[in-house]
Amino acid sequence: MTTLEMLNAAPQRLTVDAALVAEAIDAASDCALVCTACASACLSEDHAREMAVCVRDDLDCADLCGVTARHLARLNASDKQLTLSVLAACIEACVQCASSCAPHRDAHEHCRLCEQACNRCEQACQALLDALKTPV
Amino acid sequence: MTTLEMLNAAPQRLTVDAALVAEAIDAASDCALVCTACASACLSEDHAREMAVCVRDDLDCADLCGVTARHLARLNASDKQLTLSVLAACIEACVQCASSCAPHRDAHEHCRLCEQACNRCEQACQALLDALKTPV
Amino acid sequence: MTTLEMLNAAPQRLTVDAALVAEAIDAASDCALVCTACASACLSEDHAREMAVCVRDDLDCADLCGVTARHLARLNASDKQLTLSVLAACIEACVQCASSCAPHRDAHEHCRLCEQACNRCEQACQALLDALKTPV
Amino acid sequence: MTTLEMLNAAPQRLTVDAALVAEAIDAASDCALVCTACASACLSEDHAREMAVCVRDDLDCADLCGVTARHLARLNASDKQLTLSVLAACIEACVQCASSCAPHRDAHEHCRLCEQACNRCEQACQALLDALKTPV
Repeated sequence: MTTLEMLNAAPQRLTVDAALVAEAIDAASDCALVCTACASACLSEDHAREMAVCVRDDLDCADLCGVTARHLARLNASDKQLTLSVLAACIEACVQCASSCAPHRDAHEHCRLCEQACNRCEQACQALLDALKTPV
Repeated sequence: MTTLEMLNAAPQRLTVDAALVAEAIDAASDCALVCTACASACLSEDHAREMAVCVRDDLDCADLCGVTARHLARLNASDKQLTLSVLAACIEACVQCASSCAPHRDAHEHCRLCEQACNRCEQACQALLDALKTPV
Repeated sequence: MTTLEMLNAAPQRLTVDAALVAEAIDAASDCALVCTACASACLSEDHAREMAVCVRDDLDCADLCGVTARHLARLNASDKQLTLSVLAACIEACVQCASSCAPHRDAHEHCRLCEQACNRCEQACQALLDALKTPV
Repeated sequence: MTTLEMLNAAPQRLTVDAALVAEAIDAASDCALVCTACASACLSEDHAREMAVCVRDDLDCADLCGVTARHLARLNASDKQLTLSVLAACIEACVQCASSCAPHRDAHEHCRLCEQACNRCEQACQALLDALKTPV
């Protein structure tokens, strides 16, 4: 099953390109898992104290990405402003988490993968945000 | 145990009145549960079709309040802008959910309680948002 | 990025075939999203009252699958019994949700996709549960 | 508002003492927050490496308690076995987390509060589990 199939199976009508929504859902869902895994992996590294910022930002980013994926999957059209606010918060969390993981990307493969997932999610959310703001 | 005790037990330093953070955590945590319960209760009411908007807004609000309570409980000082964005999204969700529950408040006690919990959460998040924006 | 890459990037050692863990994470993460979407889609169908059981089971299943994916992504080896209990609860939720969606599979494509995702998740969790219970 | 008021406002009928459900919801919701706060606080302590087990168990326990509170708040009567499985997983997570926090209770107030919250949640879930298993 693809996320696009799932969106097309819903009776609610989309006001924006379904492919943009599907990519944001996939990127956010993926990022939530990678951040969760990265937080736990960081705890097993030496210098765990130095990793503390990274772990906290992972946990916040995992939460925000998870809630963004679920919100978008609901296709709740009752409040477009909520979607804009959720996307803005998710983008903020991804930017912050990517910047915390970046310094560790060469030392820790999980930080490299996490930075990558955050960047993809940030871009997908930004693309959807731009499309939602564009007057039809 | 009180939420204030929990905040005071953390080594991270707060840059804002702890009582405001504690009230926002308590109100958001409470609202997340009430919205979850209201969504499920709505499904057992007659005219479930009319309740659909209410259920979806309950689910979004429960998610946003849950993530807000957890974010605040982390006392993650690495990104103040994320806290502002999370609070803004939570306020948006609470305002929307309260407006969906309000028309049913006389018919359904769970909608009355939910509207109340949303209003309290909105106010607590707004008070914290204002304090965080105030230059020290 | 694949989930297997993510697991291999963690310093924690696995005591079971990583491919089984990766498939359980992917299936649970996918199922959490599909259940969330199905719950919301059901609310827009006629006969929403009849869909109430389906919606509630969707919501429970989404929660259980989400927590299972996150638990597995953590590779927390401190308590194998917790992993067994989480998998057992997830399997229970998937079986129940699939049986609630099955009667609607011909009328609603989202219920057909949801039943499918629940079946895949149940099987992946059962395969991992069996492997974890097998003495090495 | 009390959790008991919330439960009484729902049209679904309970098959067990509402006070037991309310206490399990309150204890689980409280424990989810305290574990989230404890995980973050542990990261700021010296010897963060030694705290790693504590942090991971906190995160698992926060997830399990959160999902338990939401499941119970739904009063979903369609599958009693799911409720038993969820409570069993939550009890397991609380026992494990309490045992990880206990050794740090004198050094860190947040670990003492967390152990306390886990013990209360374990007991509330066990009392509800026993009541649900008792034939009427």
